[in-house]
Parts: sequence; structure tokens; C-alpha cells
Amino acid sequence: MSEELQGLRRRLADFAAARHWEPYHTPKNLAAALSVESAELLEIFQWLTPEESSRVMADADTAHRVEDEVADVLAYLLQFCEALGIDPLAALSAKIDRNEERFPKP
Amino acid sequence: MSEELQGLRRRLADFAAARHWEPYHTPKNLAAALSVESAELLEIFQWLTPEESSRVMADADTAHRVEDEVADVLAYLLQFCEALGIDPLAALSAKIDRNEERFPKP
Amino acid sequence: MSEELQGLRRRLADFAAARHWEPYHTPKNLAAALSVESAELLEIFQWLTPEESSRVMADADTAHRVEDEVADVLAYLLQFCEALGIDPLAALSAKIDRNEERFPKP
Amino acid sequence: MSEELQGLRRRLADFAAARHWEPYHTPKNLAAALSVESAELLEIFQWLTPEESSRVMADADTAHRVEDEVADVLAYLLQFCEALGIDPLAALSAKIDRNEERFPKP
Repeated sequence: MSEELQGLRRRLADFAAARHWEPYHTPKNLAAALSVESAELLEIFQWLTPEESSRVMADADTAHRVEDEVADVLAYLLQFCEALGIDPLAALSAKIDRNEERFPKP
Repeated sequence: MSEELQGLRRRLADFAAARHWEPYHTPKNLAAALSVESAELLEIFQWLTPEESSRVMADADTAHRVEDEVADVLAYLLQFCEALGIDPLAALSAKIDRNEERFPKP
Repeated sequence: MSEELQGLRRRLADFAAARHWEPYHTPKNLAAALSVESAELLEIFQWLTPEESSRVMADADTAHRVEDEVADVLAYLLQFCEALGIDPLAALSAKIDRNEERFPKP
Repeated sequence: MSEELQGLRRRLADFAAARHWEPYHTPKNLAAALSVESAELLEIFQWLTPEESSRVMADADTAHRVEDEVADVLAYLLQFCEALGIDPLAALSAKIDRNEERFPKP
């Protein structure tokens, strides 16, 4: 993984350790939290038309909410991967390889 | 963002473009897909005890399913961010900064 | 469907109509809202042990939050079914019939 | 609750008991399963336009998938409520009362 991503992972781990949150951070709980945060991101969009959904960053408050939820989703994804020893970038790269075989360019 | 992450983002964009999927990739649809994939990751864990959830990588088939869902979550997160011009690493870094102020070390 | 359930469905429809919310209540949006509310219910449980999760109703505030989210989930489920002309009780009854064939009693 | 709903609740309880599934049916696990099934319902709609989403019942296969997921959502909602002694219809009725006060008719 990149140095920047490694740095974020370390900061998240230090943050949780300093607050003694590790016992709560089972893979199951982190998967639930990831799912909850993804739903909170979706909540911002649930009543918008497709067109309105493309313009959410034009409003400063909504833009901040969107970035905040993106941060939460990424935080739990990284902590989930840390808990199980998964490299998310390697997992995605392998998946794109497989998809390129499964769905050949038309 | 790191070069590795940029590379993945580019591969995802090329993959979608080659199949003419862009019209489907509104921020709203991508947020829904992100939420659906996160729930599919959670599905693997829903009936497990906390202890069992820590051992999922010991079984090769389950490990593969977990990595596959992690890849899907990251793929939709990156595509969502691409669609709205968000840097997810910067968003997470800013969020950790805020959290360190909000929840001071005990 | 039972009279009580029909009455709730009518109250929900009247409530939405009086506020001119129908244009927002596409099946897609209602499915998203149902998913978001289910995640909000899950959020109450995400860091609890299995044992703690069985005792949530002992605390009056948490009990109220749980009942409130249950109400939201049921409200969107009923409105979703109304939008598509689905009888949820008939759908569940048919599903239990199928499951009794698929998973015979051990 | 209505007799029909009570009957479904009893069938679900018998089904789970006959297969010794009760230990898995903690409120936390049932909330996770409810959330997962709601996301599976959303999955059917994730790439559809609002207009297409209104026409899903015109295709027999899709209609069956939608009804099947509705049944799963209702099944887990009822089992969740059973586990915690919640009457979902009373919860929804109380919530509509509160909402009618909070959001007066325009």
C-alpha cells in the first residue's frame, strides 16, 4: 500500500488504541459500521433526482457532509482490512484483472 | 492521492468507459451500489460470533469472498469520489484531525 | 391484508399526499430509504455484544430509539409495497411455503 | 397485531425452532440480516432510472425477485420484533401520531 494510505491506517489504529476501542473492533462490528456509514452517505442522495445528485458539491454544507461520510466509509474499510490482514489495493487490482477477463471489451 | 490509487481509479474509469456504463454512474447510483456492496460484505458475518468473525481468513473460500467484497466496496467508493471530484485520502485525513480535537485522548 | 395494516397504509399515504411528497416516492427512492432506515436500526447494535443486544429494551431511551427505527422501516416497507401494488403478507406467506419445501425439517 | 400477522410470526418462529436457529437470532444478528435484505431489495433498483423503477412489476422475473426480497425484509423485521417484544404496528401508529404533530399539514 502507498505511504499515504499506510499513514492513515496507522493514525486510525493509534486513535482507537488510545481510547481502548480495540475490543469493539471485531471484523463483524467493523463490517456493520462500514455498512451503516455507507447508508448514511446514501441518505444524502435518497430523495434527489439523478441530476440533483450530480450537483451536491455546489452547496458547501452538503459537500462537507458528503466528504465527512466518505471519510467514515474509508476509515471503517481500512480498519476492517487491518483487522483481517487484507491489502485493499491488492484486492481491488486482482478484482479488476478478473473482471477484465469476465466482461471483455465489447 | 498515491500513484497506486490513481492507477486503480484510472483502470476503473477505463473499464466503465469501454462498456459505456458512465450514464449509470451518477453519484446517487454509485452511493447505492457502495451501500449494497457493504451489505454484501456484512452478509458474510451476520450469523457469526465475534470470535468466529476474527477467523474468517482461515478458510480459503471465505477469505476469497471477503477480499472480493472489499474490492467491490473500494471500487464504488473510488468511482463515487471520481464522479464528485473528492479526494478520499484528504477527506479522511481532515476527519481524523477533527476527531482528535473532538475526542481528546483520555 | 389486515384492517390494522390497511389503516396504517392509508395514514401513510394521506400524510405523504398532504405534503406533496408523492413525486419523491418512486420505488427506487423508497427502497433506498428502507435500506437507510434498516441501517439506522443496525447502528444501535453495531458495538454491542450479542448479550448486550438482547437487553436493549431495558433502557427506556434505547427502547424508544429501537421502536422509532422499527416504525421507520415498516413505514417505508409499506409505502414501497403500496407504490408497486405488492401485498407484503401474501409475499411472506408464499416465501415461507417455499422455504418449508427447500429446507425440510431435520 | 392482526391475526394474519400473528400467524406469520408464529410460522417464522416454528420454522427457526425446528432448525435450531434460535441461538443465531440475537437482536443484533437479526438487525444485520434485516439491513442486508433491504440492501438486496435496493440492489434490484440501483442502476434503474426513476421511471424504470416504477415499471419493475411488468417483468415476471423481476416482480418475483422484488416480492421475494420484500418477504425477507418483513420476515427479519417480524423476527427482530419478536426477539425484543416489540409490536411493530403499535410502534408505527405512535410514530405517525408524532409526525403529524412535528410536520403539520401545510
